[in-house]
Amino acid sequence: MLRISEYSAMAEAAIREISLPSGNLDALYSPITYGMQAGGKRLRPTLLLMAADAFGNCPEKAIAAAVGIEMFHNFTLLHDDVMDKSDVRRGRPSVHAKWDDNTAILSGDTMLTLATKKISEVDDSILRPVLDTFNDQALRVYEGQRLDMDFEKMDEVNLDEYIEMIKDKTGALLGGAAKIGALIGGASAEDAEKMYEFGMMLGVAFQIEDDYLDTFGNADTFGKPIGGDINNNKKTFLMVKALANGGSNAQALKAALSMAPSPTKVKTVTRIYETMGMPAVSKAEVAAYSSKALAAIKKTSLSDDRREAFRRLIEKLIGRTK
Amino acid sequence: MLRISEYSAMAEAAIREISLPSGNLDALYSPITYGMQAGGKRLRPTLLLMAADAFGNCPEKAIAAAVGIEMFHNFTLLHDDVMDKSDVRRGRPSVHAKWDDNTAILSGDTMLTLATKKISEVDDSILRPVLDTFNDQALRVYEGQRLDMDFEKMDEVNLDEYIEMIKDKTGALLGGAAKIGALIGGASAEDAEKMYEFGMMLGVAFQIEDDYLDTFGNADTFGKPIGGDINNNKKTFLMVKALANGGSNAQALKAALSMAPSPTKVKTVTRIYETMGMPAVSKAEVAAYSSKALAAIKKTSLSDDRREAFRRLIEKLIGRTK
Repeated sequence: MLRISEYSAMAEAAIREISLPSGNLDALYSPITYGMQAGGKRLRPTLLLMAADAFGNCPEKAIAAAVGIEMFHNFTLLHDDVMDKSDVRRGRPSVHAKWDDNTAILSGDTMLTLATKKISEVDDSILRPVLDTFNDQALRVYEGQRLDMDFEKMDEVNLDEYIEMIKDKTGALLGGAAKIGALIGGASAEDAEKMYEFGMMLGVAFQIEDDYLDTFGNADTFGKPIGGDINNNKKTFLMVKALANGGSNAQALKAALSMAPSPTKVKTVTRIYETMGMPAVSKAEVAAYSSKALAAIKKTSLSDDRREAFRRLIEKLIGRTK
Repeated sequence: MLRISEYSAMAEAAIREISLPSGNLDALYSPITYGMQAGGKRLRPTLLLMAADAFGNCPEKAIAAAVGIEMFHNFTLLHDDVMDKSDVRRGRPSVHAKWDDNTAILSGDTMLTLATKKISEVDDSILRPVLDTFNDQALRVYEGQRLDMDFEKMDEVNLDEYIEMIKDKTGALLGGAAKIGALIGGASAEDAEKMYEFGMMLGVAFQIEDDYLDTFGNADTFGKPIGGDINNNKKTFLMVKALANGGSNAQALKAALSMAPSPTKVKTVTRIYETMGMPAVSKAEVAAYSSKALAAIKKTSLSDDRREAFRRLIEKLIGRTK
């Protein structure tokens, strides 16, 4: 196994080499290049390459699929930014802000088909399970995005609903990446399923940590302004869990959430979360899902040193602000 | 071979039977059912079933793919209606008008993935060529839509550019439907390619006829108000060809096109087209592409009576207002 940074570098290099038509079709394809070259952690293709290497010593065979999974992720970002009216993505104008909504919609559609093509660049013998895994995770991502949008209009969401939503929206894609990589590496169906479970649990841990960082993180390392979720009354782990606790703190939280967006609102809500001990509760939940991810890896037939690589990935990801 | 109406009825019945998740995911899936059940000619699945039957006497084996190709078509309608801000589709509110833009975007994405799944329900032995055909036609459809949007901002478009655009936007999907059906029927690669050519040429003929009917058709049978293209200054075969002719009529046409949308504008432009003999020119072009479609069928290994079925399809389609 290589170091995690080496898998990311492989993914990054392949993404830089993507060659798309130009000329009179620039208006369709250049927003795709722009979207793909925004950088980011390249978590999904990194996980896919690691899984392929762990089971088959063949990260090279998985390069096209790795590019495909990252292109799928970026397609969802193009469309999500239109739906959420987010004008900034990784410190730059989002595609719909730089061009227009129609461009983000149509170039996003194109990315989904290009992603499917890339994912399909595998041996005929595994084309069907790889394609099925890809399509099924895609449906879960759409379902998660739909639930996330629906939650915005609901006063309260219970914790189970919230966890189901992030399993769909964030977990399924990481699960799919790990499973597709494993299949390319030649893993058995059982091992591939355990890798899906690993990615899914990692995704849930990652999302709860992300929710935590949006309130308690450091703006410089987090990459987004702190408190955005609070100002948008976004249903996060912190909010859902705190409201579920009930009591006078939950009442105070409800009152604070009804305030208009402002630095005071962010400060007030943050303080209530602290009073309720939410940072520790959140950390415990992240740790619990990280353990579930680790448990899935332990159920595979992988050797100890290969399992260790995935343990380091969890650590790198969850401890990414330390 | 069955009658054309019997293939359409098979497609329609299969579409009515699509079963999608409900419950808390109604907001994602019910717009898909709504979009799919709007009716229409079901031309694409009909062509796919006919091709499967012509080569393999097995329209039943092609039912899932037929549903998939129609779902792809309807996905493009959901997104196109957002991009074009069209509030009416087949006499009912379009999805984004009935729900909202975000619903049309996200349910449309879902349809693309569901379509890919349906298309993939074929024997393993032909999964790759079927999937490649599907993905490649999809890219051409997006490219065509992009060019169509770009043309709106251009003063003049030449005839070659226009034909290339409708080959992408309309021809490629019909070509893909015919080729996928042929592959499912067990056609050779050469025959499948000829069927693609048939569908492509049929699509071009169909689009030029559609352009003609938007100005010279009968509102009752055409299903849309007459003159919409003129009022929107849409680049149609009539406009592109008439402007290319040059001379005083083309000058008069340019002046008329600069008028604000009104019944008078429609009448004025229509009269100029008539003066220039555009109805006959348009009919000749449709006939030329119909001949190309027929020529493609004649290059296949199909028997005469099977070729005849496709000749009748052309006739039914192009003569559909008589």
